[in-house]
Amino acid sequence: MEKSNTKTAGLIIIGDEILSGRTQDTNTAYIAQRLEEIGVKLMEVRVIPDVIETIIGTVRFFRDNFDYVFTTGGIGPTHDDKTADAVAKAFDVPLLKNPQAYQMLADHYQDESKINDARMKMAYIPEGAGLIDNPVSGAPGFIIGNVHVMAGVPKIMQAMMGNILPNLEGGAVIHFRQLVVDRPESSMAHILEQLDKEFASVDIGSYPRYREGSPEVTLILRSADAELLDKAYRSLHDKLESE
Amino acid sequence: MEKSNTKTAGLIIIGDEILSGRTQDTNTAYIAQRLEEIGVKLMEVRVIPDVIETIIGTVRFFRDNFDYVFTTGGIGPTHDDKTADAVAKAFDVPLLKNPQAYQMLADHYQDESKINDARMKMAYIPEGAGLIDNPVSGAPGFIIGNVHVMAGVPKIMQAMMGNILPNLEGGAVIHFRQLVVDRPESSMAHILEQLDKEFASVDIGSYPRYREGSPEVTLILRSADAELLDKAYRSLHDKLESE
Repeated sequence: MEKSNTKTAGLIIIGDEILSGRTQDTNTAYIAQRLEEIGVKLMEVRVIPDVIETIIGTVRFFRDNFDYVFTTGGIGPTHDDKTADAVAKAFDVPLLKNPQAYQMLADHYQDESKINDARMKMAYIPEGAGLIDNPVSGAPGFIIGNVHVMAGVPKIMQAMMGNILPNLEGGAVIHFRQLVVDRPESSMAHILEQLDKEFASVDIGSYPRYREGSPEVTLILRSADAELLDKAYRSLHDKLESE
Repeated sequence: MEKSNTKTAGLIIIGDEILSGRTQDTNTAYIAQRLEEIGVKLMEVRVIPDVIETIIGTVRFFRDNFDYVFTTGGIGPTHDDKTADAVAKAFDVPLLKNPQAYQMLADHYQDESKINDARMKMAYIPEGAGLIDNPVSGAPGFIIGNVHVMAGVPKIMQAMMGNILPNLEGGAVIHFRQLVVDRPESSMAHILEQLDKEFASVDIGSYPRYREGSPEVTLILRSADAELLDKAYRSLHDKLESE
């Protein structure tokens, strides 16, 4: 399916709030869009609970299978925040008090006596990891290998993502063209199949939905080759018009 | 972390629209909430692309690890709809034209001549699977083993879920109590840790966010034991008040 030399990424969302249905995830769409802009394609997302073994297994699998891995959630001060510990174990390194992370917390709270045991927990970072600045609440994220560990709160995650993106090496940027058609998907499947064969390096997605009770399909063509994409788009447009 | 005899479920979201960030997933929250009502806990969600091998591997892993598996997406008429084929392969059964599924399509379109090749594709179901009625667009979902295969369009998925739920055997229903506190998570982590030790069969979640720039934490206590839950809630409330 992947037809270009785009870089790949996997996203791990850690914590019970999405799995319980209590919180609507918005981090996936944000991260996917920011990555796509620099030519990194999100290949898989896993939403997992705060269970050490599950986090370790997922981090290891993603680390070995994607160019970049991002995690959100589980790096706060409470008993259910287990991400730093699990990521350290996934990389077989100890979790150590990081002087730079401690300094970030001290700067944020402005008074070292305010760094209670719970806050101190956020200064413990896997050995060898680099830090991701957190301008919102002080406690940093971190990068170890190709794994980028961020907070789950959208405002903090977005600030961290802003600090990470300039340092990522992107792939070929994927261009896309979009067409919304108000007829059922099944009436044009043969056209899409033909187009898919004709333009092997253009990825063709067909996304049906209902709008005021009527079927509507969004067709999205994607390719790293802008010229070819244009040709495929015109061909699709003509084929749909001529029926 | 799982402290009660709740049934477990895994959800597989198949297709590129969520991974590209173009579409905001809402199916996860809907499914999680409906399942929780009958005592089935969503343990993991994976969002994967329309790649046959990835679908097969994910279905097999989930089937073996959770009581119930749900999939959404990839059962439409177009070239990028690969779920039925992949699920058949995951169960090592052939994909066959299902007479009952064909009849559902014929009833929906009211005229058999309207069942073109693309629509006919939706009558192909893994051998041995039971069908899930689709009152919205005719093409059925299906159930094979513990795997429930549904459409990705929320309106259709919700109708299918409505047909599935009465037939699921739920577990112990989990009760919950919620408390929203306008102070930072790190100032009460010690209280939560203490509570977590004191009430071993109550699950305690702490979900921070920002509201108009100020930290706010939603604390959620869950348990199958309503009486114990009440005790834990009162204890938490008193501990927070007394500081």
